[in-house]
Amino acid sequence: MASLSAPPTLPRASPVVVGAARGRRAAVRVRTAAAALGGGCGGGGGGGMEKDPGDGPRSTVKEKPVMSNIGKSTNILWHNCPIEQSDRQMLLGQKGCVVWITGLSGSGKSTLACALSRELHYRGHLTYVLDGDNLRHGLNRDLSFKAEDRAENIRRVGEVAKLFADAGIICIASLISPYRRDRDACRALLPDSKFIEVFMDLPLQICEARDPKGLYKLARTGKIKGFTGIDDPYEPPVNGEIVIKMKDGECPSPKAMARQVLCYLEENGYLQA
Amino acid sequence: MASLSAPPTLPRASPVVVGAARGRRAAVRVRTAAAALGGGCGGGGGGGMEKDPGDGPRSTVKEKPVMSNIGKSTNILWHNCPIEQSDRQMLLGQKGCVVWITGLSGSGKSTLACALSRELHYRGHLTYVLDGDNLRHGLNRDLSFKAEDRAENIRRVGEVAKLFADAGIICIASLISPYRRDRDACRALLPDSKFIEVFMDLPLQICEARDPKGLYKLARTGKIKGFTGIDDPYEPPVNGEIVIKMKDGECPSPKAMARQVLCYLEENGYLQA
Repeated sequence: MASLSAPPTLPRASPVVVGAARGRRAAVRVRTAAAALGGGCGGGGGGGMEKDPGDGPRSTVKEKPVMSNIGKSTNILWHNCPIEQSDRQMLLGQKGCVVWITGLSGSGKSTLACALSRELHYRGHLTYVLDGDNLRHGLNRDLSFKAEDRAENIRRVGEVAKLFADAGIICIASLISPYRRDRDACRALLPDSKFIEVFMDLPLQICEARDPKGLYKLARTGKIKGFTGIDDPYEPPVNGEIVIKMKDGECPSPKAMARQVLCYLEENGYLQA
Repeated sequence: MASLSAPPTLPRASPVVVGAARGRRAAVRVRTAAAALGGGCGGGGGGGMEKDPGDGPRSTVKEKPVMSNIGKSTNILWHNCPIEQSDRQMLLGQKGCVVWITGLSGSGKSTLACALSRELHYRGHLTYVLDGDNLRHGLNRDLSFKAEDRAENIRRVGEVAKLFADAGIICIASLISPYRRDRDACRALLPDSKFIEVFMDLPLQICEARDPKGLYKLARTGKIKGFTGIDDPYEPPVNGEIVIKMKDGECPSPKAMARQVLCYLEENGYLQA
């Protein structure tokens, strides 16, 4: 685990924190100071709280609502919030996006996800890893590995990744996601180049020789059916943003893989708001 | 929309940024400076990148993996990441948690969610609103309003909210969530007081008089079946953390409601890491 020897956080509502040189979070705190002075907890009239344009519980419903039927839901209404993705990005000093790592079992997806998360964190960036296996412990625990459940698994991860990107976070999704149509459906959820596909282009032989979970062995002996690369296809990306591959017969190290992705993010402006 | 007149973000990898007084993000950047000097994009050997304890793609699989069968998934493995919730909380200067706003349609849940998100943002905190209706446009578009789908809807929102809290974010979930058992199942996902239940305790008459979406009218004329408060029960929280109610016959304003929740968060240490 990373242990950051950082100094304690500044008290947020301190009017002492001023000056452009302190960066964006400090600027947010300056704004904060006034709020705290006017609307502290346990007293006062809340004069310092930001003013709601319409200051009553009905304020959000004054416009005529447009109800929709979406999927299987009837009579639902989209609610806009005053704080948007751009505001959160400004706060974080980065652009929300999804780094989608796809490849065979044993190709190093989780290793890259962790290494990338660590390197970005050390640079002060907020990341979150959505790991295919981990999500099957929670959100996707109702899904099996049969074809339609695998598609639903990818769809849900794509939808959740979209929420994280909307939150301003660099979301790192790591899952085999063998079919092009499923990945492309996730890409379609995230326009404006916010979907960055990373293909772990390592030969099956290498992945099978690693066999970190012992699953290739089970698949070869028929104990697991429909295993990607053995008796189920893997469809490589056609126009993915990043390809991780061997160099001079050597697999890249975690730090080399992470650096490749990090450079892409830096060069394409994701590491600033 | 909030418009923050903040100065441009500091260049992240600048060794000029030093000193404890700049707060945690600055400290992260100091660490960053060394990394950038040693392992910049487009060249170098990556000497400045943080060292992976085992520096090869196999490094994460050296320990004997413990495969599990969870729900309908077989042979899955939990992956730990080196950056954990505590690291992200340090970066953000707050504690990840879920503020779960429950109550009748028209009770002001979305209004409170937006007002709270705004107030916390102005104080430099990262929030994300999970709105029940909005999620039915994406992740939950395959779910209807029949009983089992409503339960699955709540379950998924709870699981996603848990991920956001794990990411270090103050996640504000806003949905009717009428049944106690569904809410309690979400609470069980988030131990250590990370689930903060906010009950919008406004009388049905008030909510029905507002009828912001015109749904009560449809329910009264039988055009919508199973509508909470009309022909389907709402089970109020028994030991929720926060209750929003009328005072002297008046509904609280958005800013008053937001302040009540904000004070709870402040007094209970969520607004610091």
